Amino acid sequence: MSATPESIVRIGQIGFGYWGPNLARNFRAIPACELSALCDASPDRLAMAGDLYRSATLYTSFDEMLASEIDGVAIATPARSHYPLVMQALKAGKHVFVEKPLAMTTVEAAEMVETAERLGRVLMVGHVFEYNPAVRYVKNLLDSGAIGDVYYLYSTRVNLGRIQSDINALWSIAPHDISIFLYLLGQTPESVSARGARYLSGDVEDVVFCSMQFPSGVVAHVHASWLDPSKVRCMTVVGSHKMVVYDDLATEGKVKIYDKGVTRFTNPQYGEYQYRLHTGDILIPKLTMQEPLRLECEDFVRAIQTGESPLTDGRNGLRVVQVLEAAQRSMERNSQEIAINLAAA
Amino acid sequence: MSATPESIVRIGQIGFGYWGPNLARNFRAIPACELSALCDASPDRLAMAGDLYRSATLYTSFDEMLASEIDGVAIATPARSHYPLVMQALKAGKHVFVEKPLAMTTVEAAEMVETAERLGRVLMVGHVFEYNPAVRYVKNLLDSGAIGDVYYLYSTRVNLGRIQSDINALWSIAPHDISIFLYLLGQTPESVSARGARYLSGDVEDVVFCSMQFPSGVVAHVHASWLDPSKVRCMTVVGSHKMVVYDDLATEGKVKIYDKGVTRFTNPQYGEYQYRLHTGDILIPKLTMQEPLRLECEDFVRAIQTGESPLTDGRNGLRVVQVLEAAQRSMERNSQEIAINLAAA
Amino acid sequence: MSATPESIVRIGQIGFGYWGPNLARNFRAIPACELSALCDASPDRLAMAGDLYRSATLYTSFDEMLASEIDGVAIATPARSHYPLVMQALKAGKHVFVEKPLAMTTVEAAEMVETAERLGRVLMVGHVFEYNPAVRYVKNLLDSGAIGDVYYLYSTRVNLGRIQSDINALWSIAPHDISIFLYLLGQTPESVSARGARYLSGDVEDVVFCSMQFPSGVVAHVHASWLDPSKVRCMTVVGSHKMVVYDDLATEGKVKIYDKGVTRFTNPQYGEYQYRLHTGDILIPKLTMQEPLRLECEDFVRAIQTGESPLTDGRNGLRVVQVLEAAQRSMERNSQEIAINLAAA
Amino acid sequence: MSATPESIVRIGQIGFGYWGPNLARNFRAIPACELSALCDASPDRLAMAGDLYRSATLYTSFDEMLASEIDGVAIATPARSHYPLVMQALKAGKHVFVEKPLAMTTVEAAEMVETAERLGRVLMVGHVFEYNPAVRYVKNLLDSGAIGDVYYLYSTRVNLGRIQSDINALWSIAPHDISIFLYLLGQTPESVSARGARYLSGDVEDVVFCSMQFPSGVVAHVHASWLDPSKVRCMTVVGSHKMVVYDDLATEGKVKIYDKGVTRFTNPQYGEYQYRLHTGDILIPKLTMQEPLRLECEDFVRAIQTGESPLTDGRNGLRVVQVLEAAQRSMERNSQEIAINLAAA
Repeated sequence: MSATPESIVRIGQIGFGYWGPNLARNFRAIPACELSALCDASPDRLAMAGDLYRSATLYTSFDEMLASEIDGVAIATPARSHYPLVMQALKAGKHVFVEKPLAMTTVEAAEMVETAERLGRVLMVGHVFEYNPAVRYVKNLLDSGAIGDVYYLYSTRVNLGRIQSDINALWSIAPHDISIFLYLLGQTPESVSARGARYLSGDVEDVVFCSMQFPSGVVAHVHASWLDPSKVRCMTVVGSHKMVVYDDLATEGKVKIYDKGVTRFTNPQYGEYQYRLHTGDILIPKLTMQEPLRLECEDFVRAIQTGESPLTDGRNGLRVVQVLEAAQRSMERNSQEIAINLAAA
Repeated sequence: MSATPESIVRIGQIGFGYWGPNLARNFRAIPACELSALCDASPDRLAMAGDLYRSATLYTSFDEMLASEIDGVAIATPARSHYPLVMQALKAGKHVFVEKPLAMTTVEAAEMVETAERLGRVLMVGHVFEYNPAVRYVKNLLDSGAIGDVYYLYSTRVNLGRIQSDINALWSIAPHDISIFLYLLGQTPESVSARGARYLSGDVEDVVFCSMQFPSGVVAHVHASWLDPSKVRCMTVVGSHKMVVYDDLATEGKVKIYDKGVTRFTNPQYGEYQYRLHTGDILIPKLTMQEPLRLECEDFVRAIQTGESPLTDGRNGLRVVQVLEAAQRSMERNSQEIAINLAAA
Repeated sequence: MSATPESIVRIGQIGFGYWGPNLARNFRAIPACELSALCDASPDRLAMAGDLYRSATLYTSFDEMLASEIDGVAIATPARSHYPLVMQALKAGKHVFVEKPLAMTTVEAAEMVETAERLGRVLMVGHVFEYNPAVRYVKNLLDSGAIGDVYYLYSTRVNLGRIQSDINALWSIAPHDISIFLYLLGQTPESVSARGARYLSGDVEDVVFCSMQFPSGVVAHVHASWLDPSKVRCMTVVGSHKMVVYDDLATEGKVKIYDKGVTRFTNPQYGEYQYRLHTGDILIPKLTMQEPLRLECEDFVRAIQTGESPLTDGRNGLRVVQVLEAAQRSMERNSQEIAINLAAA
Repeated sequence: MSATPESIVRIGQIGFGYWGPNLARNFRAIPACELSALCDASPDRLAMAGDLYRSATLYTSFDEMLASEIDGVAIATPARSHYPLVMQALKAGKHVFVEKPLAMTTVEAAEMVETAERLGRVLMVGHVFEYNPAVRYVKNLLDSGAIGDVYYLYSTRVNLGRIQSDINALWSIAPHDISIFLYLLGQTPESVSARGARYLSGDVEDVVFCSMQFPSGVVAHVHASWLDPSKVRCMTVVGSHKMVVYDDLATEGKVKIYDKGVTRFTNPQYGEYQYRLHTGDILIPKLTMQEPLRLECEDFVRAIQTGESPLTDGRNGLRVVQVLEAAQRSMERNSQEIAINLAAA
């Protein structure tokens, strides 16, 4: 059942709600891939999916789809269903792509990772921003040393809408920022502190402020909310030599590199520390436009074909769940800082 | 020595560094006021001050200035000197205006307030944004009920520069945001959590993220930093009926009112909660332009003349110090939430 | 062959290049309409069209499509082909929708209008911005008298790209602005002056500045170019009471209403004229989102069904061609002002 | 009376209305210069000037000021008074700095230039934007060849306010843009076309659209108005290799360099011209901040001291007047293109 490089990878997708159609559209567009099965509990959505993807077999039962001739499963269902669906698919011998977050607990996520590794199956999580050319550009910039030491990062991801009832803004929105933080820094934070607030319902947090401490000394902060007058998706990286703003909604260029920095020196006259500000050019680099989701889907297909790990593999997903879980605990304990067991992932 | 409404209020000012010249310029421009004395430890700065304010008597000794015929003292010196200078001035029978923060500890601030009240002297702190027409407009909007219930507020005050060596970004920058929060809400938070990080020197935090919980359920968050590629001074108020953005650097109007909100309702078909988004017009109201610092200085002069309390009186300053002190403690204790003794102010 | 309100309108479309696919997508989406035939000289494009619209009959010959059972023809071909294709379609008894500009000369345009009227067929031109909700909002605002007397309008429509070889920037880009001007003012200009410049080839103008004088005294100006670093689509209407900016690319609201104006009064002291500036609120009204092209296509279908004239009918198209032709003549005669024969349309 | 490099240049200034105070402030700040006399017909304004410049002798009579011991005269009076005042000052043996426009007719301007040259006196006009570091940066960029061939430029200079009664928007606002055009291109246009419109009074144009043709083929366009909802001061230079936007009100950097261009090539397959768009990085260069007016005043002082011509000398001012006069004539003749006698300057 394992695909060879020459063969076409057959994908079966479950979930055709808000995000599922985007996944399906991209899987279909990949030559090495065939979207051969679609599954949704809602007959209406399934019919709509069938209209668009006439060559795909339609299923209302996930069991039945798993029993069909597919190599990989793409899961775009509510977050709380990720664990059971992924486990079932892995045990059925399928490679699995699942939307973020990988799971709702570290224990579940670790079990998913362990199962995939034991069974030799690809487990991939949809941290789509790690495939975003702007994020990759910033990653290269950081790795090149051009911005000097990274001091701190902060991200704002707010909007009005996409209000969830079953998961809060932390689990719904912040996985993007956390996965970008970890990707850019190549580290997992050692501790997390968060404050959330519930307004619309008493059940889930509509807004979350979350900060995390990395082993290198870097601090990262994310503000996530679905209750805001403006749509903002903006991250700032402050370094010792340069500073970078990645604004996903900017029209003239998503990345802005500021040749700015501060140097501390000892004033020989007074013998005390002083600061010299450096302010130079601003550069908005030309980025090659590629749909991140397409790159992500291609990475899943490639991983199935080659056996190589995808960029956003299960361990990557587990690390993000570790941060989310710690942040959730911190919110429940009055912002108390929660340590992360770095050995676990 | 107390001034009558008819008499001119004589002000002696200490400190002519970064902010002092702005104070002096405004005190001079007030007809009911005379800037009659200037004091600075630096002969150079004092000479410069004397050049601009020829009718003022110049002092290098605060003691000597206090001994002169002045009604009120304006203090624009480093934060750590506020307590001793204010106490000395009050005990010399002077009314006192002091730059923010009022003091570096709650204990000191409370003693200053108590002393002023006991001696019947005005004690005022320079929370200048409470005199800003844009902030006042937002305050009126909140008080009118037009935005419904306030859910939460968040503020970003970042820039590159004005790096301090003796106090951190919390004490240097955030007093503005905290005083605005307290002013807008008419409440003091019951608990505070903060995370700071030190990069330029090992001594003080260059960046601070601080959130606070108000008795009404409102959460407020401030991000303060002197290490940022862009200058931002922006606050968002999210309410149940409307949302307001106050951007102090906006060129077309500092206040933007978004007729946006979310209503929760029970879907009769499914018996579950659903959300209805409301999105209407955006209004940028015309604000009357007045220099906040001028209004602030006038309030000090008026308070001396009438004996009525200024808007940003000592108790106001004490409450902000309470929040700052709690935030400082939280930063030192891994973001642990610190309760504020609301009875103290 | 004329459709009754109850019957489905059958559309045959010629041209499936840059803009054609947008037209086809919208015609298909209209319940009262069937996209029953598609014609393109390029087999490749025709095949692509056929892939998307499986129920449509495909033609490489316009003659053959005209001979089929269709009620209306939609023409999305190069501008120079509009006249012959429209005339042929009208004579074949079809209702005709044609992309802008209606024709390349006033004589041709007038003949098209006369033919359609004589044969009792709908002739409609794709001045799509007259169906844009933002433009309609501004039109209502002007008609309501809220902005007072209109003084002048100016429009900038520039970009890098969509460079044409057969027609210049005037005929390619400016028809949009001219049709909006005429729609907003309900008048045709009495004279036009224009300057163009050719850079990329010696054949057609890449950039055009064109101003026109309306009978009411209003002046309108358009700057059209496909050689610009930024994409701009912005129009300003200056009135005596208010001023309006319609920015088609604005993210927060395409229309901005400035409560600004100037009043002239006689200073009694000096007996001379003086000016009083009025500056009030800025309003960004909520606009209902509707795809202009969809509204346009619906208007064509409705016109066929009811026999009522569409908003952008042939006479509308003729008036725009009059302005374009006069501007073209002015460009060829050193910006000389060219009068328009207002009786002609 | 001519100043030597060692001596202090004594300036007498006439006019202390809107712009005069800015001039006086800068002349005072120049070490090599002494603002020794001030003249204004209004006793109020003269008193105000005297308050600020206590060492200057005050005059209500220009004759009397000219008779005093001054080397140069700075003239900041209404445009129509420039000719008589400049002539009088030159004939009194003074070096002259006069605000823009140099004069209201070419004949007057030429006479002023001729007189200054004959008498060996400096004649300088206040085209302050030629001293603006952003404009100079763009000039260097053009001269370096980095942007390739200049295709065209266009400038928008609009605002609400500074409405004039005696001169129109062309003469009041556009001299800035025209002087920048001539400076950047190092050429004088050979012909000009303009359209203006009068709304507030019947006397002068409130808005002007003016285009000009340069010998090199470059076209430049300026839109000037004091009736606009927004303040805009923005110029775009389109070149074959790069494009530059100079936005005088931009907060993050006044100059933006777009690595954008279009290349024409012959498609070997079809034998026809096609276009290839190039889109690269955007650069916002760091500019050294210097007050243009200070640099301008220094150039006047330096010219007096050294006898070298200032950048914006009389011939420079004459050329701008030639363009203004041609534009004025074009406005009066229905936008007819007016040729400029390039030999005259």
